[in-house]
Amino acid sequence: MPNILFTNLMGGFVFDEKFKLVDYILIDQNRDILKFRSALDEIMKKYEAHEASDLESSFVITEFTDIKYRKHLVEKNLSITRKSIKNSVSEDTLIVHAISSIEDLDKITNLLSKRLREWNYIYNPEISHAISDNEKFSNTISSKSREQLLNDLNIDEDMSLGSKLKKNDISAILSLSQQLTNLFKLRKHYEKYIITLEMEICPNLLEVAGSQIAAKLLRHTGTLKRLARMPASTIQILGAERALFRHLRNKRKNLMPKHGLIHEHPLILKSKLKQHAKAARALADKISIAVKVDFFKGKPIGKKLKNDLVSKFSIDY
Amino acid sequence: MPNILFTNLMGGFVFDEKFKLVDYILIDQNRDILKFRSALDEIMKKYEAHEASDLESSFVITEFTDIKYRKHLVEKNLSITRKSIKNSVSEDTLIVHAISSIEDLDKITNLLSKRLREWNYIYNPEISHAISDNEKFSNTISSKSREQLLNDLNIDEDMSLGSKLKKNDISAILSLSQQLTNLFKLRKHYEKYIITLEMEICPNLLEVAGSQIAAKLLRHTGTLKRLARMPASTIQILGAERALFRHLRNKRKNLMPKHGLIHEHPLILKSKLKQHAKAARALADKISIAVKVDFFKGKPIGKKLKNDLVSKFSIDY
Repeated sequence: MPNILFTNLMGGFVFDEKFKLVDYILIDQNRDILKFRSALDEIMKKYEAHEASDLESSFVITEFTDIKYRKHLVEKNLSITRKSIKNSVSEDTLIVHAISSIEDLDKITNLLSKRLREWNYIYNPEISHAISDNEKFSNTISSKSREQLLNDLNIDEDMSLGSKLKKNDISAILSLSQQLTNLFKLRKHYEKYIITLEMEICPNLLEVAGSQIAAKLLRHTGTLKRLARMPASTIQILGAERALFRHLRNKRKNLMPKHGLIHEHPLILKSKLKQHAKAARALADKISIAVKVDFFKGKPIGKKLKNDLVSKFSIDY
Repeated sequence: MPNILFTNLMGGFVFDEKFKLVDYILIDQNRDILKFRSALDEIMKKYEAHEASDLESSFVITEFTDIKYRKHLVEKNLSITRKSIKNSVSEDTLIVHAISSIEDLDKITNLLSKRLREWNYIYNPEISHAISDNEKFSNTISSKSREQLLNDLNIDEDMSLGSKLKKNDISAILSLSQQLTNLFKLRKHYEKYIITLEMEICPNLLEVAGSQIAAKLLRHTGTLKRLARMPASTIQILGAERALFRHLRNKRKNLMPKHGLIHEHPLILKSKLKQHAKAARALADKISIAVKVDFFKGKPIGKKLKNDLVSKFSIDY
C-alpha cells in the first residue's frame, strides 16, 4: 500500500502504509490558502501519496486523539469560528437593527411628547393646544421664545393662561424639547440609512414594498435568504401569526387573516375594504417575486412589478 | 329706607330704597384694589349708603340679570380665573413634572441601552460584554474609537469577534449612543433641578427623605399642602395602596405593608429585615414633622431630625 495524505483544518499529514505519521505541514493562521495548496501538492509528489479514502481516514483519525494536537486543534477551530462570526453580519442584519431602533424611537418620542405637552401646559398652554403634531410641537417649542409663540397665535401676553416661570424652570422644559427634537431627527436619519442599505441588497423589494415594510419583513424573518424562500401566501400573512392560529383553531368564528405586516402598504390602505384581500394577495405575489430576484441578484424588475400593481388597482404610490 | 351699596366682582353699585340703580363704579382689569376701596368709601359717603344685607342683596341681584351686564360679568370672571390659574403653579408642581420626567427617562434609557448593546454586538462585542453599567457603556462607545476600546481591553484587533463595518454603518450606531448619552445627561440635569426646587420649598423634607423620595412623595400627593396634612402613618405607606387594600380585604393572608415610596430610603435599605418596620415608622414620623415645618415655613429642623434617625439606627446617610 502506498503513502496516503490526510488533510483536516490543522493542515496536511502524510502516513505510510502502517498508518504511521511520516511528514506534515500545518496551516498557519495567516497563511494563504493557495500557498498551502501548492505546498500540499509538493508533499504529495515527494511521498507519492494519494488522498485518503473514507476507509483510510477512519484509521488515520485515531492518530489525532493524541493530546499534543489538542491545543492546535482548539486554536484552529476558534479562528475559523471567529472568522465566520465576523462574516455573518450582512446588510440585512443592519437593517433589522435599524428598524428595531426606529420602533423603539417611536415609543420613546410618544412618551416624551406627552410629558413635554403636560409640562409645557403650565408655561405655554396655548401652544400645547394649538399644535397637535408631536414633532412640529417639539421643534416649535425648542426654537422659539414664548413671546414669539404667543405673537404667532395672535394672543396678548396678559391674556395667556401660562404662568411666569423663572429662567431655571423654563430651561428644564426647553432641555426636554431639545432632546425630543434630536430623537425625531435620529429617527429620520435611520429612515434614510435603511433606504441606502435596501438599495444595496434588495432594491426590487424596496421598490415594490416601500422601505419601512421591506425592513419590517426582513426583521420578521431575520435574513433576506429566509424571506426569499417563502411562498407569497406566507409573506401575505407574516406578522399575523396570532390571527392565523386563531383561525386554524376555530375556523367558524375566526376568519383567515387577510394581511400581516403588509397591511400598512398604501395599496391596501387606499383600496376599498372589499378589495383588501385581493390587493394583499397581489402585493404579496409581487413582493415574493421581487425578493427572490434580489436574493439571486437578478436583473432589476422592481419598477415593472410596481407598475403592474399600480395599473391593476389604479392606486398610485 | 336709606340707600344701599351692593358690591360684586364687577364693582360697587348704589341702589335707592326701591332697589333702583342710582350710581356705580366698576373695577377695571388693572385697577388697584386699594384705590377701588377708597372710591367705594367715597361713594358710600356721597349717597349715605350702607352695605347690603343678605335680604337686600337678594332683591338687588335681580337687577344683574339684565343682559347688558352679561359681557362685563363674563370678562371679569375670565380674568379672575385666568389669574388664579396663572398663580396656581408653584414649585411643587414643577417638582412633580421633573420627577415624572426622570421616571420616563429611566424607562427610555433602559430601552435604548438594550438596543445599543445588541446593535453594538456586531461591531464591538467585547465592549458590550465588558461594561455592564448602561451609562458608562454609552459614554465609552460614543467617546472612543474601536481601536482605542480594544486597546484598553488588551485585545488584538484580529482576535476581536466584531465585523468590519462601513463608515455609514458605524455612524448609525454612534448616533444612537450619542443620543443615549445626552438622555443620561438630561436625567442628571433634572436631578439637580429638583434639588434646587426642594431647597426652596421643602428644605427639611429634602434633608430627612433625600431629593428623590421627597419628589416622589410630592408627586404622589400632588402638592406640599396635601402632604403636610397627612399623618405619619399614611406617609409611611404612600405608594403601597394595593398592598394596603389587599391587607384590608384579607387580613389573614396578607400582612399590612411596612412601607411604600419610602422603601428606597437608605435607612430602610441598609437596616436588617427585622428592623425594616421600625425604621419605616421612625422615618415616616420624621418626614411628617419635616413636611409640616416646611409648609408652615417654620425654623429649619431637618438636620436635627436626620441626626436623630442616624443616631437611633446607627446608619449614616
